[in-house]
Amino acid sequence: MAKERKMKLAAYLIGTGMHVASWRHPDSKPDASIDVSVYQKLAQTAERGKFDIAFIADSLAVNAESHPQILNRFDPIVIITAMAAATEKIGIVATSSTTYNEPYTLARQFASVDHVSGGRAGWNVVTTADATGETALNFNRDTHWEHDHRYERAEEFIDVVQGLWDSWEDAAFLYDKENGAFFDAKKVHELNYKGKYFSVKGPLNIARSVQGQPVIVQAGSSEPGQRLAARTAEVVFAHRDNIEEAKSFYKSLKSRLSEYNRTEADLHILHGISPIVGGTEEEAVQKYSDLQKLVNPYEGLKFVSGYMGNVDFTKYALNTPASEVEFPVVNGIQSQFDEMLRIIAREKLTVGDLYTRFFGAARKDNFVGTPIQIADEMERWFQEKAADGFMLQFPLLPSGLDDFVNLVVPILQERGLFRLDYEGSTLRDHLELKKPGNKFVDEGVRPIM
Amino acid sequence: MAKERKMKLAAYLIGTGMHVASWRHPDSKPDASIDVSVYQKLAQTAERGKFDIAFIADSLAVNAESHPQILNRFDPIVIITAMAAATEKIGIVATSSTTYNEPYTLARQFASVDHVSGGRAGWNVVTTADATGETALNFNRDTHWEHDHRYERAEEFIDVVQGLWDSWEDAAFLYDKENGAFFDAKKVHELNYKGKYFSVKGPLNIARSVQGQPVIVQAGSSEPGQRLAARTAEVVFAHRDNIEEAKSFYKSLKSRLSEYNRTEADLHILHGISPIVGGTEEEAVQKYSDLQKLVNPYEGLKFVSGYMGNVDFTKYALNTPASEVEFPVVNGIQSQFDEMLRIIAREKLTVGDLYTRFFGAARKDNFVGTPIQIADEMERWFQEKAADGFMLQFPLLPSGLDDFVNLVVPILQERGLFRLDYEGSTLRDHLELKKPGNKFVDEGVRPIM
Repeated sequence: MAKERKMKLAAYLIGTGMHVASWRHPDSKPDASIDVSVYQKLAQTAERGKFDIAFIADSLAVNAESHPQILNRFDPIVIITAMAAATEKIGIVATSSTTYNEPYTLARQFASVDHVSGGRAGWNVVTTADATGETALNFNRDTHWEHDHRYERAEEFIDVVQGLWDSWEDAAFLYDKENGAFFDAKKVHELNYKGKYFSVKGPLNIARSVQGQPVIVQAGSSEPGQRLAARTAEVVFAHRDNIEEAKSFYKSLKSRLSEYNRTEADLHILHGISPIVGGTEEEAVQKYSDLQKLVNPYEGLKFVSGYMGNVDFTKYALNTPASEVEFPVVNGIQSQFDEMLRIIAREKLTVGDLYTRFFGAARKDNFVGTPIQIADEMERWFQEKAADGFMLQFPLLPSGLDDFVNLVVPILQERGLFRLDYEGSTLRDHLELKKPGNKFVDEGVRPIM
Repeated sequence: MAKERKMKLAAYLIGTGMHVASWRHPDSKPDASIDVSVYQKLAQTAERGKFDIAFIADSLAVNAESHPQILNRFDPIVIITAMAAATEKIGIVATSSTTYNEPYTLARQFASVDHVSGGRAGWNVVTTADATGETALNFNRDTHWEHDHRYERAEEFIDVVQGLWDSWEDAAFLYDKENGAFFDAKKVHELNYKGKYFSVKGPLNIARSVQGQPVIVQAGSSEPGQRLAARTAEVVFAHRDNIEEAKSFYKSLKSRLSEYNRTEADLHILHGISPIVGGTEEEAVQKYSDLQKLVNPYEGLKFVSGYMGNVDFTKYALNTPASEVEFPVVNGIQSQFDEMLRIIAREKLTVGDLYTRFFGAARKDNFVGTPIQIADEMERWFQEKAADGFMLQFPLLPSGLDDFVNLVVPILQERGLFRLDYEGSTLRDHLELKKPGNKFVDEGVRPIM
C-alpha cells in the first residue's frame, strides 16, 4: 500500500521575524538576530512542532537600506551548527552561494554539519541576488555576474560538491586496529573534475556522512533555475501569488523531473507563506496591522516615494501637511496617484500619515486568520497540488512560530496531513528521500588513491 | 603592583591524538576524528583544567600517505562552534588559511563564532604548507603559491579581516524601538580596502563582537612569518628543539614588537610539547614505547627507507631476514648506516623488526616523565623565558589530556604558575590581552554609510 502523502514544513528563522519592523514590537528582543540562544530556542520550538526543517537564509552585503534583521546576522554555517547542538531531530538547512564560495570548502562544511548533527543537514543553493552589485565589491570583484553566468557556474559547483561528498565510499574507513588498516584504499576516489569554471582534484578530507549526502534545497524559478532544480534539487521553495499560479508552477517543475530520471517524490515543493494566527480573524488582522504601524515613517516613505514620483520625503517634517509636498507629474499609474492626492486633501493627511494610510493597512492574505482558517487554506494548497508543504516566513518571531506550533500544527495532525512524531532521525528520513548512491560505485569508477 | 606572570596553556585537539598510531591504541575510539562528542568532551576536560585555548588545526588536502587523523576530520569552524556549545569559558581557536579563503567570509565566520561563544574565538592564521601541491589542485589552481607570495597576501588578508571586524562601532546598534532607530549611521564604516591582492568594500554584516576582535594566532617562524607575527599576532606557537634555541627565538620575536608600537605583553609565545605522564619515569617512557609499537610496520618502514637508501620494503614479507634485503650503497650518513647493518647481522633482525629497533625506541624528551618532572621542565622554560606557555600536543587522546589535567595542572597551580580558576569570560580575559580599539574611531574616519 502506498504511504499517504504528508505535508512538509520548514520554518524560516530570522531574529525577530520577517517583518521589517518586527524588532520594534513590544515583545521583541531587538538584538535577536545575533543571539544564539534565540535561534536555538526557535529551532527547539520548530522541533516540538515536528517540522522538517529549520531554515537560515543569507546575504553577503549590507547598506543603509537593508532590512534590519540582515544588517547584523550570523554566518549560516555557524548558526546551524549551534542549532544542531541544541536539537535532536529537526533538519537544519543553511543558505550558501555558488557565486562567492569554493566548492571544496563548502562541501567540507556541509558534510561536517551533517556528521555533527547526525544526518540533519541541507544546503540551500543560491547564486546570490544582488541588484546593487554590493556583494561583488565585498568579494574582490568589480561586478556581480549575470544571471546565466551564475547558473552555469552553479551547475558545475553542485556537481563538484556532490562528487566530493562521494570521495569515500560508505565503508571506506575500516578502523581495523589489529591489522593497522585505517581505510580501504580501494574505496577512496579522487574526483578529478575539470569543467569550464572548476578544476578540483579531491578526495574530500571527511567521510561520507550519515545521509550519504546533505539534502539539496533551491528556490530559483527562472528557466535556468528550474532546470537546475529539476536536475539536482530535493526541496524547492516557491512563492506564487495565488493557488492557480502555484499549481501551474508545481505541475511544470514536477513534469521536468522525468528528463533526469527522477520521480515526483524525489522533489518537494514548499510554498512560502507568512501566517499570522489569531483567536478570531479580526484579531489576526489586527496583529498584522499593529506590526505595520511600527514601520519607521521615513522607511515607510521610501516605499511611498516609489509610487509618488520619487519624492525625497526626508526634506519634510513628519507633521507637514501632505498637501504641501511638491509632487512631480507622474507618468504611469496616474489614476492611482490622483486618487491618493484626493484622499490627502480630504483627510488632511500629514507626511507621517502617508505610509500607514496607503501601504500600512493589514494585508488580508489567505494565511492570516484563525488556526482553522489557516489549516483549511494549507490543506487546500496541499490537496490541490499547489504545494507539497510550506516554508513558513513568520512576520514576528518567536510568537508567530509558537502560535503556529501550538494552534495550527495540532489541526494538521488531527486531519492526518502532518506527522504526529518524527519516524526517523535524519532530514532525508523526514522528507522520505532515499539515501543517494555513491557516484563512483554507481559508475564503477576505479579508485585512484 | 604588577600582576605576576602566569603560564598560558593550549590543548591541541585531534581525534585520538598526535601520534600516527594513536588510533590503534586499545583504548582509542578509532573514528574519534569525526565524533563531535569526542571533541566536546576534550574541550570540557581542557576547561576543567582551566586551559586558555582548545585548538583545532587544519589541512585542505589528503592523500594515501596522510596521517590517519587528518584523512577524516571536521571543518574547523564547524567543530569549534560545536565545542563552544558544550563549554562556557575556554577559548576556542580554529585554523583557517589566507591562501584559500575570501576575507569577507572568514571575517564573518570568526565574528559569528565570537558572538556565539560569548567572546571566546581565536583565528590561527596560516598560509597553508603544501609540499605536494595537492591543496592547490583542490582549489582550482595549478600550483601552490610560493612562500613570499603567500605571506604578502596574508598581510593584506589580515588587514582586510580586522578592518571588516571594525565595520560597526561598539555602540552602533541602537535598538531604539521608540524612535525606530535600529542603528546609528554615524557608527558604521565601509572599509573600501584596495590593495595588491584584495579589493573589499564592507561593511561586514555582523556587529563587532564582545572581544572587539577575535584573537589572532600564528605559528610562522620564517622571516616573513616572524614579521607578520610581530605586527599582528597575539599568540604564537613555536617549536624549538631545545631551550637555548627557544630562548633565542623568544627574545628575537619579542624584540620586534616595539617596531609596531607593541609591548612584550601583547604577544604570548607558546612552545609546542608532547607530554606523556607516568607514575614513574619508566612508566611514561613505556607508554610512548607502546604507542611506537603500534605503528603499522610498512608505514614505519617508509621512515626507515629514507635512512637506508630508499629501499622499497613492500617487496619483502615482514618476516624476511633483514640481512637478505638488497641495500644500495648509501651516500650520506654512512657511519650510521654501517652501524645499522652490523646490528641487523648481530641481532638477526627481520624486515618487520627494523622500524621498532631503529626508530621505535621511546624518545625520552624532557616532557615524558612523572608529573613533577614535567612540571619542573615547564617551569624552567617559562621562568627562563623560553616560552610564555605551552601548546600541548598529546600523542594520545583523551588519556594524555586527562592525565595532564589531573596530575600536572595541580602542581603548576600549587606553584603559582597557573591560574586556579578563570578570572574573566573571554579569551582575551584569559590571555590578559586588551580589547582592541576600533580602527575607524582611532583614525577618526568619517562614516560613509
